[in-house]
Amino acid sequence: MSLIGKQVQPFKAKAYHNGKFIDVTEQDFKGKWSVVCFYPADFTFVCPTELEDLQNHYATLKELGVEVYSVSTDTHFTHKAWHDTSPAISKIEYIMIGDPSQKLSRMFDVLDEETGLAQRGTFIIDPDGVIQAVEINADGIGRDASTLINKIKAAQYVRNHPGEVCPAKWQEGAETLKPSLDLVGKI
Amino acid sequence: MSLIGKQVQPFKAKAYHNGKFIDVTEQDFKGKWSVVCFYPADFTFVCPTELEDLQNHYATLKELGVEVYSVSTDTHFTHKAWHDTSPAISKIEYIMIGDPSQKLSRMFDVLDEETGLAQRGTFIIDPDGVIQAVEINADGIGRDASTLINKIKAAQYVRNHPGEVCPAKWQEGAETLKPSLDLVGKI
Amino acid sequence: MSLIGKQVQPFKAKAYHNGKFIDVTEQDFKGKWSVVCFYPADFTFVCPTELEDLQNHYATLKELGVEVYSVSTDTHFTHKAWHDTSPAISKIEYIMIGDPSQKLSRMFDVLDEETGLAQRGTFIIDPDGVIQAVEINADGIGRDASTLINKIKAAQYVRNHPGEVCPAKWQEGAETLKPSLDLVGKI
Amino acid sequence: MSLIGKQVQPFKAKAYHNGKFIDVTEQDFKGKWSVVCFYPADFTFVCPTELEDLQNHYATLKELGVEVYSVSTDTHFTHKAWHDTSPAISKIEYIMIGDPSQKLSRMFDVLDEETGLAQRGTFIIDPDGVIQAVEINADGIGRDASTLINKIKAAQYVRNHPGEVCPAKWQEGAETLKPSLDLVGKI
Amino acid sequence: MSLIGKQVQPFKAKAYHNGKFIDVTEQDFKGKWSVVCFYPADFTFVCPTELEDLQNHYATLKELGVEVYSVSTDTHFTHKAWHDTSPAISKIEYIMIGDPSQKLSRMFDVLDEETGLAQRGTFIIDPDGVIQAVEINADGIGRDASTLINKIKAAQYVRNHPGEVCPAKWQEGAETLKPSLDLVGKI
Amino acid sequence: MSLIGKQVQPFKAKAYHNGKFIDVTEQDFKGKWSVVCFYPADFTFVCPTELEDLQNHYATLKELGVEVYSVSTDTHFTHKAWHDTSPAISKIEYIMIGDPSQKLSRMFDVLDEETGLAQRGTFIIDPDGVIQAVEINADGIGRDASTLINKIKAAQYVRNHPGEVCPAKWQEGAETLKPSLDLVGKI
Amino acid sequence: MSLIGKQVQPFKAKAYHNGKFIDVTEQDFKGKWSVVCFYPADFTFVCPTELEDLQNHYATLKELGVEVYSVSTDTHFTHKAWHDTSPAISKIEYIMIGDPSQKLSRMFDVLDEETGLAQRGTFIIDPDGVIQAVEINADGIGRDASTLINKIKAAQYVRNHPGEVCPAKWQEGAETLKPSLDLVGKI
Amino acid sequence: MSLIGKQVQPFKAKAYHNGKFIDVTEQDFKGKWSVVCFYPADFTFVCPTELEDLQNHYATLKELGVEVYSVSTDTHFTHKAWHDTSPAISKIEYIMIGDPSQKLSRMFDVLDEETGLAQRGTFIIDPDGVIQAVEINADGIGRDASTLINKIKAAQYVRNHPGEVCPAKWQEGAETLKPSLDLVGKI
Amino acid sequence: MSLIGKQVQPFKAKAYHNGKFIDVTEQDFKGKWSVVCFYPADFTFVCPTELEDLQNHYATLKELGVEVYSVSTDTHFTHKAWHDTSPAISKIEYIMIGDPSQKLSRMFDVLDEETGLAQRGTFIIDPDGVIQAVEINADGIGRDASTLINKIKAAQYVRNHPGEVCPAKWQEGAETLKPSLDLVGKI
Amino acid sequence: MSLIGKQVQPFKAKAYHNGKFIDVTEQDFKGKWSVVCFYPADFTFVCPTELEDLQNHYATLKELGVEVYSVSTDTHFTHKAWHDTSPAISKIEYIMIGDPSQKLSRMFDVLDEETGLAQRGTFIIDPDGVIQAVEINADGIGRDASTLINKIKAAQYVRNHPGEVCPAKWQEGAETLKPSLDLVGKI
Repeated sequence: MSLIGKQVQPFKAKAYHNGKFIDVTEQDFKGKWSVVCFYPADFTFVCPTELEDLQNHYATLKELGVEVYSVSTDTHFTHKAWHDTSPAISKIEYIMIGDPSQKLSRMFDVLDEETGLAQRGTFIIDPDGVIQAVEINADGIGRDASTLINKIKAAQYVRNHPGEVCPAKWQEGAETLKPSLDLVGKI
Repeated sequence: MSLIGKQVQPFKAKAYHNGKFIDVTEQDFKGKWSVVCFYPADFTFVCPTELEDLQNHYATLKELGVEVYSVSTDTHFTHKAWHDTSPAISKIEYIMIGDPSQKLSRMFDVLDEETGLAQRGTFIIDPDGVIQAVEINADGIGRDASTLINKIKAAQYVRNHPGEVCPAKWQEGAETLKPSLDLVGKI
Repeated sequence: MSLIGKQVQPFKAKAYHNGKFIDVTEQDFKGKWSVVCFYPADFTFVCPTELEDLQNHYATLKELGVEVYSVSTDTHFTHKAWHDTSPAISKIEYIMIGDPSQKLSRMFDVLDEETGLAQRGTFIIDPDGVIQAVEINADGIGRDASTLINKIKAAQYVRNHPGEVCPAKWQEGAETLKPSLDLVGKI
Repeated sequence: MSLIGKQVQPFKAKAYHNGKFIDVTEQDFKGKWSVVCFYPADFTFVCPTELEDLQNHYATLKELGVEVYSVSTDTHFTHKAWHDTSPAISKIEYIMIGDPSQKLSRMFDVLDEETGLAQRGTFIIDPDGVIQAVEINADGIGRDASTLINKIKAAQYVRNHPGEVCPAKWQEGAETLKPSLDLVGKI
Repeated sequence: MSLIGKQVQPFKAKAYHNGKFIDVTEQDFKGKWSVVCFYPADFTFVCPTELEDLQNHYATLKELGVEVYSVSTDTHFTHKAWHDTSPAISKIEYIMIGDPSQKLSRMFDVLDEETGLAQRGTFIIDPDGVIQAVEINADGIGRDASTLINKIKAAQYVRNHPGEVCPAKWQEGAETLKPSLDLVGKI
Repeated sequence: MSLIGKQVQPFKAKAYHNGKFIDVTEQDFKGKWSVVCFYPADFTFVCPTELEDLQNHYATLKELGVEVYSVSTDTHFTHKAWHDTSPAISKIEYIMIGDPSQKLSRMFDVLDEETGLAQRGTFIIDPDGVIQAVEINADGIGRDASTLINKIKAAQYVRNHPGEVCPAKWQEGAETLKPSLDLVGKI
Repeated sequence: MSLIGKQVQPFKAKAYHNGKFIDVTEQDFKGKWSVVCFYPADFTFVCPTELEDLQNHYATLKELGVEVYSVSTDTHFTHKAWHDTSPAISKIEYIMIGDPSQKLSRMFDVLDEETGLAQRGTFIIDPDGVIQAVEINADGIGRDASTLINKIKAAQYVRNHPGEVCPAKWQEGAETLKPSLDLVGKI
Repeated sequence: MSLIGKQVQPFKAKAYHNGKFIDVTEQDFKGKWSVVCFYPADFTFVCPTELEDLQNHYATLKELGVEVYSVSTDTHFTHKAWHDTSPAISKIEYIMIGDPSQKLSRMFDVLDEETGLAQRGTFIIDPDGVIQAVEINADGIGRDASTLINKIKAAQYVRNHPGEVCPAKWQEGAETLKPSLDLVGKI
Repeated sequence: MSLIGKQVQPFKAKAYHNGKFIDVTEQDFKGKWSVVCFYPADFTFVCPTELEDLQNHYATLKELGVEVYSVSTDTHFTHKAWHDTSPAISKIEYIMIGDPSQKLSRMFDVLDEETGLAQRGTFIIDPDGVIQAVEINADGIGRDASTLINKIKAAQYVRNHPGEVCPAKWQEGAETLKPSLDLVGKI
Repeated sequence: MSLIGKQVQPFKAKAYHNGKFIDVTEQDFKGKWSVVCFYPADFTFVCPTELEDLQNHYATLKELGVEVYSVSTDTHFTHKAWHDTSPAISKIEYIMIGDPSQKLSRMFDVLDEETGLAQRGTFIIDPDGVIQAVEINADGIGRDASTLINKIKAAQYVRNHPGEVCPAKWQEGAETLKPSLDLVGKI
């Protein structure tokens, strides 16, 4: 079975955030929605474009009550140095977790043991710390943060409206479905 | 490590396709791109909207040289019956695999052992039978097939242009990146 | 040893019954006689004729205080869809259990692991939830529900008349045997 | 999975047959149809009525090319003694296997380890030595040999007419079904 | 080490005794002397001559306070049938145990696993349920019950006269030996 | 299963025989009948009376082609010393095996591990080295060598007349039985 | 590590002592010094000369408060018989332990498993039951009991004078050594 | 079983001998008699007196064709230093093995694992490298080298005169015993 | 045992060296002397001072034929970025290995599994790839590269002059020692 | 992971110190700084120069509150003898531990199992008994005690000034670093 529906396990990590080094634990995932975005390595090529793209949607995500975490197996020191020097990364306002112990990457099943780097996996986590959506791309294929917005809205809608489900390519405000016996075979 | 980069293992399944029952094996994934789309069950609610959405992009995907397979743990008999009776499903022209033995769902790590149903996982597979992208949503959250198109284009571009990578939210025709030492720390 | 004399173990399943989705558990087998009839798959060929045949004896079985359950590894959604569309199946008034998790089929030892489908097994269960008779046919050989009636009558007679046994091809009202030392070697 | 579709394993047993002691092995099940009928013990009550009933159908079964074997964990000596003294058993013309080593009863999964006696199981075996039908009753409930005739006819018909199946309560001469895509959901 | 000096373990068996079916357990071996005589099978050749021979000494054994049990892996039903029909066996007044579960034969280490029959073993058991003498013959060699009498008298004498032992070919009334230091090397 | 029908395993032992020390191996049991008589210890009480009794039948046994071996866990030195000094033992002409390594006593399953002494077991072995009869008495109960004679005659008769068996208390020259179907239930 | 410094473990053995059979246990080794002298077998060649030599020093050993035990795997019966008949052995006044169960020989690590006989080992045991000296010779090499006297005197001196040690070839009354830092490298 | 009769296993050690460092292996024990004398530690108290005592008999031992080795877990460097400085040790002409790896002490079963020092064990080894005599004293009890001389003479006599054995306290030139049947019980 | 004397095992790593990314394997350690210097993380505090110190001795080390490798669990991308931006690090001319897979750190036993960072270990490796010296400091205690020079000179001298050893605080040109028997105890 | 940061485990050893034999345990490492210096063997070549060098810095180390222990697998007796006779060693005032049981050498991972000798390892231990620095040289390469002084000063400084670290080649009185976010990438 995939990680969908699994609870984030206890962990402790150092992160760089807005000019400070902070601690992040599984407790930070409780009580609000989270996006966790793994990428292979600082100071590489696809990664900064993805992280910048994510930053561009950060305000929207914040409005939706979502906190954003990026994670690589680099240290928080390296995150700061990258933030200090990269035009793209210097814009980042969300939390950049350092995972040199590889524990978080292993927990989310995206660690490439051969290289010691994380795969390009994005996870949407609900306020109970339970994983609701997973998206992983092979190296060389960048992600598109805009697709996260709709998924999160759908996940939030479903959480807030028990008994309703969001159909394919659902957009905020569109109709949802109320599963019932009568619908069986009718759609 | 996630399924990204893993080869599809040998399997044999029955499928419904355009009014016929056919056999599908891992050999069908060799030599062309494939999308495999798992869903929980025939005759339910979110599923037909997703499958219909996928059908709507089928022509485009075909043009990109991509074959599409939907999979649930229902039988191919049930797939045909659903196709015969559902307004949404009757439009489907791609291949509907029956996986009552649960082998394919287990191989792609989307089987919920408790219910015996597949999770909502979508996989992009390259012409070597290697998984290039994974997307899985919790139940109740429909997928959006349109996001597949860009991912497949990026994956195809990267495959055809060794040495280049596609940045975040890359669109066909947009610039790609050529990883080189000089780019380190410059993006 | 066969399943004869074994107690039905705890389980929980969804079923379609008279236009409703209901839950069935091992508790439903307590306090009354039951017939459980496994078959390979909805929307196939021999199966509907067997299920229809069973329906034709349902009234008689009800009079004998027997509840009837059909089981396949299809979902309850598929059962409803079949019931909605098949001339034979639409007549069915008994309970149609969906066993996509294969737990019930495995418990009654009729799961074909290769195909994920159930074999054609019929079980008579007494009011203690204990299996009293088993009948299983290879695929392609339909069962005859009428033979169930006599078996159930014999099983009920034996249960209600401790110390008596029903001889071969016993019919209701016919003589039974009272095993005693004097009968040894005399029959 | 039940014994349906399983091949009879090698064994060697002594039997009483028409005033002689003979050897029976799994080779005797090759090339013709067989019925194997287990029962608990010689010189008891239900058993002779069942064995007599079976004898009454022996001529018909022979015409269908079927050999009949009864088996208990008694010795072949006891079988002969029973045959010499019991009015019912003395009529028996088929083969009475002695299974004091319990090997055959265990192979057919009908041995009650506690008592060392066989359960009331009847097996139809095809000319490849493969089990095609199983019927087992709890103690005290006699079997009805007449129901065997139809089952064997159906099994023989299916074997001789690949591509056809016998529906429920099929009788010799009645219509069979040719499974095809068009029949899906139509019965 | 042989079974000499071992206690009979708990068991429960059905037996035929003087026209009745009775239960026998290890408790029946407590408080009086017992002879347990295993033989291969009812309705065979050497066995009835041995059992008849044992019957001829039954009165004497009873006078010595000894109960006698014969045991084969046949059922008690078969024992009754044999008793009803055999000239030799019909004389038997002692207890005929049926051991189809093979538990007693295995406990006394005389079960031939290949055939499922008991070897020709005779056991003398003291009132504590402890085995005092064992005699086993290969098939085809009948035992002589008369030799039991002297052995039992010697065993009873030794039990009743602590400190004395019976020399070779001791007969009732003959001198016994009182082991003492002075006898060492003197006999 | 008891030792009946088991082959004597390879061994090598020292023995005292007619004023000499000799080696005895399992090869000495091939080609002629043997009696092996275990007893607890030299220079004790019951033992010499049993060994003397055996000596008294030695001539008869020799005429029947039987060699006799006595065995205790004493050394052959002790056997010689006992033979030199005991009135009873000095008469012995058969072979006295010393088994201080306890290998022979353990092989015949008569070693009391607690005391390191052999139990009173007598074994008749045929010219193939296969055990045909076993007799074991608890300590304090002497054996009677005369009962050996008849057993050996019966065993020899059966070996020389395939197809015949000796009934209970058979004496040389008396009638034997030829097992046949007709005898079943007739004795 | 050798047996030096190890405590004698619990055991129970029969012995011959001055015309009586007695029990010996590990308790007999508590509170006084003991010599335990193993030898292969009674009625052999080197053994009696060693045991006689030991007897010649018995009075001296007794004066030193030492009890003497000889041990072979012969029984106490054989010990008595040997004592009754051997000129050398008949002089023995110390305790002759029989060890047919081989437990004592195994505990002192002198059992030859192949022959079942003890090796020629002599052990000095202090009043705490702790082994202080070991001497073992190959077969054919007799021991010299006189060397025991000095060893025991040295062991007793060391026990009674904590802080002093006996140098090589120490004789009673000779100087001992008081280990101290100043002696390091001075001897 | 003790080490008596066991072969010295392969080893390699450094030793100090007459002003040189040499290698010693198990090959040095082949072809001549050897005495190996373990002691706890250089620069201690009892040890030098024992080693000096051994030196005093070295000429005699050499005449008997015996090489002498002392062994402690000290290094050969320490042996040389001790030899350079100790009045007693400086006289030593035999071979002083250093065993800091503890392999030799463990092989001869005299290593005290707690302290890492050897116990006071002396071993006589024959020209086949087989151990013929063992003597071990507790700490504080010095050995007497003179007792070695007689043991070695006896061992050599027995080796050179097959069929003869040396009785207790045998001295060179004294009578030996020729074991024969006639001697049994006569000594 | 420590890593001293152990051979470097096969590995493959990416490194940054003079503006290029290169591969480093265990083969690079063959044929010349190497220094491998582990440190916790790029962009931290003690680390750059140590690496700069090492660079200051790089010319001297090169003259001695020594190649220098620094290693952290950062990637080679991060090494380049650090080199690009840090005043201290930008001077570095030796090879900076990236070990994000942690394989090299684990092989040299300096990986802190809890943090995923390397401890401050320095290793001198000879031209056979064998480790000759190890130095590891706790975090917070910087190393002094100058002490490496003397150690390497001593190691090279010893390698080139078999039979000589370098005493404590040896300096190039100073006297060495030729170990010989005469020196024992003289220094 | 290396021994850095590991706590010294419980042990008990004998040592030579200033003309006395004393006990040393892990408790002696609590409450003050310690240097533990392993070396292969007393009376060898490099070792005395290293130990003398260490003595030359003993006064300075004592002023820094550091106790010094040298350790080899020699006994404390040998240490005293060496101290008594070697010009270099006789100067030693620190504690010389004897480790013949090899427990301490094994605990610090410097035991060469093949030779039983310790490798040349030096350890700095803080007042909590935690190892702060390790230095190990291959045989033949002497250590330089002077490098210990600076390391200890740095370790003490870091312990006494939480939040500061000592950069490379730090000397007492020189500047230290206070790790802070601002320093990242600035050194």
